[in-house]
Amino acid sequence: MATLTVPASVPPVAEDCEQLHKAFEGWGTNEKLIISVLAHRDAAHRRAIRRAYAEKYGKELLRALGDEIHGKFERAVILWTLDPAERDAVLASEEAKKWHPGGRALVEIACARTPAQLFAARQAYHDRFKRSLEEDVAAHVTGDFRKLLVPLVSAYRYDGPEVNTSLAHSEAKILHENIHKKAYSDEEVIRILTTRSKAQLLATFNSYKDQFDHPINKDLKADPKDEFLATLRAIIRCFICPDRYFEKVLRLALGGMGTDEDDVTRVIATRAEVDLKLIKEAYQKRNSVPLERAVAKDTTRDYEDILLALLGAE
Amino acid sequence: MATLTVPASVPPVAEDCEQLHKAFEGWGTNEKLIISVLAHRDAAHRRAIRRAYAEKYGKELLRALGDEIHGKFERAVILWTLDPAERDAVLASEEAKKWHPGGRALVEIACARTPAQLFAARQAYHDRFKRSLEEDVAAHVTGDFRKLLVPLVSAYRYDGPEVNTSLAHSEAKILHENIHKKAYSDEEVIRILTTRSKAQLLATFNSYKDQFDHPINKDLKADPKDEFLATLRAIIRCFICPDRYFEKVLRLALGGMGTDEDDVTRVIATRAEVDLKLIKEAYQKRNSVPLERAVAKDTTRDYEDILLALLGAE
Repeated sequence: MATLTVPASVPPVAEDCEQLHKAFEGWGTNEKLIISVLAHRDAAHRRAIRRAYAEKYGKELLRALGDEIHGKFERAVILWTLDPAERDAVLASEEAKKWHPGGRALVEIACARTPAQLFAARQAYHDRFKRSLEEDVAAHVTGDFRKLLVPLVSAYRYDGPEVNTSLAHSEAKILHENIHKKAYSDEEVIRILTTRSKAQLLATFNSYKDQFDHPINKDLKADPKDEFLATLRAIIRCFICPDRYFEKVLRLALGGMGTDEDDVTRVIATRAEVDLKLIKEAYQKRNSVPLERAVAKDTTRDYEDILLALLGAE
Repeated sequence: MATLTVPASVPPVAEDCEQLHKAFEGWGTNEKLIISVLAHRDAAHRRAIRRAYAEKYGKELLRALGDEIHGKFERAVILWTLDPAERDAVLASEEAKKWHPGGRALVEIACARTPAQLFAARQAYHDRFKRSLEEDVAAHVTGDFRKLLVPLVSAYRYDGPEVNTSLAHSEAKILHENIHKKAYSDEEVIRILTTRSKAQLLATFNSYKDQFDHPINKDLKADPKDEFLATLRAIIRCFICPDRYFEKVLRLALGGMGTDEDDVTRVIATRAEVDLKLIKEAYQKRNSVPLERAVAKDTTRDYEDILLALLGAE
């Protein structure tokens, strides 16, 4: 369900490196060439290109890119070129350090990845920042958000399909009681959402709907301006329907006044190799307009070009 | 610094399997033979023996052992034979499910292992129990202990030598202020102890001593009967001086009225391949009696024999 398009026969790594080097040479930069190489290579290819480039030219590819390109385009190219685990580490570190209640990167990394991918991001965090992810989250985030986000990013959830239905029933009750009392940051709510497996949580949310006639997320809409509630809903949606969750992030980032380029870049760079096709379908269905057209309307030049390339536009 | 003794030339795995099978045959069990094989093989050998035994005889070695031997001897043989990560998963699960404030297995697994070893135990926990370690700890432990133990077992601490000395200074102050106010379960105390790297924590404890003239653990002795304080001290000692920490566990388990076989078995099985030699030295120094003699005095028969074999007794 990826949108990434890779040529049927990918050129040798050495040739890709030469093309990139050529794009950096002389007056100006050949942005089209950069896009034509990097935006059409999968994670393993990009990793091989980075390794070979550094060996051949004695300079990290990401540093060379940073010297040549700038702004939103630079950010999109660099985030995309990074290995998925490293990219998650970078996004998580940025959000932890400048944390604000509307941030969604930590929630996405904790809940819209597999447990093994979240752990890989934590390993990449050590390598890159010489600290742990949960250490930075705990040091920068405060209050109820800290109580929620530290266990969320520290979890190594069980990833199997097994479900305990009576547990789902009783924990749906616990969630309902606390939501009813507006005790949204209750320890038990946080315990359930941050430790149970995805399969178990889906069973719990289904049981919630069966027992109480509402989807849990509807009951969490009591105050649309409460960012803690919005974070709980984001967690739940990342488990239940990641494609529709990401569709909404894009819809809000693109629609209305101004464009939230950080959100657009993050979602497209992190999902192009995963499920961006599903997100595009959800977007088209919800907005009656293709996602590519909405992106093209709100962005320009090289930044627009790389996003469209990653979206698989013809 | 292990006490495990492995013969210079280890017999082929097939021969070890035959010896074990022979030990189980006929009337009675040849416990000496079981000990002579398993108590003198390292983790990689034991893993190979378990795999080959199951293939050759169509029965798991641990199950065969469980059918033949019983009680304290069985527990020591089985815990020892398990892979270190699997053994930690078993010990952690037992303690989480029958949790009581004096339990130390979770603290030891979280703080007296490397971050990679703790993570391996969490993976083994998934494989064996189809749940996550933190999920079971969060579901069974309550109150302040839950606030402490869930992040403790969920951490994937940075493992490098880098230290931020000004951070050590300021966090030593935070610890001191909270200890002074008797706010032992304060969020900040828990954050520091459960997220900082071992190197960073050692620097913080040193800075504490420098700034306030007492070792932190002395200040945590305000109420010797308070089990939460005792747990905090155990965490700190597992980081500062694991050999002396384990010496004390053995001293309390062996000395006085009755023997705590669970503690004795756990410490010997988990440390024989790690640092039991250092623990023996600490024991001799502190008690003026060799650890082997203290163990021999408090235990009997096959159980005594396997403990002494693991202690490296001649």
